Amino acid sequence: MNGNILPKPVERLINEFARLPGIGPKTASRLTFYLLRAGDEQAVELAAALEALKNTTQLCSICFNITEDDPCPVCSDLDRNQRILCVVEEPLDVVAVERSRAFVGHYHVLHGVISPVEGVGPDDLKIAELVRRIETEKYDEIILATNATLEGDSTALYLQRRLSPYNVRLTRLARGLPVGGDLEYTDEITLGRALDGRQEMS
Amino acid sequence: MNGNILPKPVERLINEFARLPGIGPKTASRLTFYLLRAGDEQAVELAAALEALKNTTQLCSICFNITEDDPCPVCSDLDRNQRILCVVEEPLDVVAVERSRAFVGHYHVLHGVISPVEGVGPDDLKIAELVRRIETEKYDEIILATNATLEGDSTALYLQRRLSPYNVRLTRLARGLPVGGDLEYTDEITLGRALDGRQEMS
Repeated sequence: MNGNILPKPVERLINEFARLPGIGPKTASRLTFYLLRAGDEQAVELAAALEALKNTTQLCSICFNITEDDPCPVCSDLDRNQRILCVVEEPLDVVAVERSRAFVGHYHVLHGVISPVEGVGPDDLKIAELVRRIETEKYDEIILATNATLEGDSTALYLQRRLSPYNVRLTRLARGLPVGGDLEYTDEITLGRALDGRQEMS
Repeated sequence: MNGNILPKPVERLINEFARLPGIGPKTASRLTFYLLRAGDEQAVELAAALEALKNTTQLCSICFNITEDDPCPVCSDLDRNQRILCVVEEPLDVVAVERSRAFVGHYHVLHGVISPVEGVGPDDLKIAELVRRIETEKYDEIILATNATLEGDSTALYLQRRLSPYNVRLTRLARGLPVGGDLEYTDEITLGRALDGRQEMS
């Protein structure tokens, strides 16, 4: 764009928006010009929300989920099953598992996956902290709920090896057809996993 | 989402992002969690850019484009043709016309279009200001460069009627095939306009 035409503050906000994932230069300028036209308070409220984000949130010192209070509401909830732990990659995964309403245990957020390509090794993740939890608490089951991706699978395999000395039950999420899924449109690997994991009808 | 799981500041930012046009709740939470993971400065820089947006920009008192300095760089540029005026709907349209490098005159930004459905009438736009410019300055041509939409066309027709007493040459942007456009994939109205507006080959 022509630098003479766009005022610097406008260009600055366009550039900041365009740094966000999935937001290209066109969307960034659409958002910026929308805010210019929107009521005076909207840009300011967004700015305040952004500032509050890092000022008032922290990682839970137990599960490393994002929280206002430490320990987080899940870790301090005595009604939840303390003996089952769900290990996930990211805080958003906790939200997804909670939304399923199929799990009432505790969490451990790794904050990433092992990825040699991106230079992320086990020491960059909250794995030592996970090992420490397993050493100090008694768990009946650890669900390795990493994503069904190459990196997610190899992180789960790494954790399996690393946690085997502790003699705790390790599980993975089931692979198979998504609910509502159509055989015809399911990729062959998923279908293969769905066949391998087929279950007795009761 | 489960209110117990998402810390309030996180939910607040998701809600603010989701107020932006074209950003749904999924994208809003993706952006929020991206910023949580990104370096400490990125959320703060975005917040600062948002605050600067309204604090340091204003509307040019001549053309009503968004500007840091009043009058804006275009209006104060004496090298530009002062006698040709391009009337556009929005500040982003000025950027688009400038990018074409096909126009070196001045602008007038209406800040909208006449739209009875949305309750926008001529008095809600910078039309009285346009009339005043035409009364006080001498223009050879006024290009009514509103969008090729129903509202854009009716706004141009309204302006044509309103400006007819001033005996100034009024033009509209040409309609026709977009460059690179394929007859087969062009809608019939555009193709009709392209035929109506066909030009002598020289």
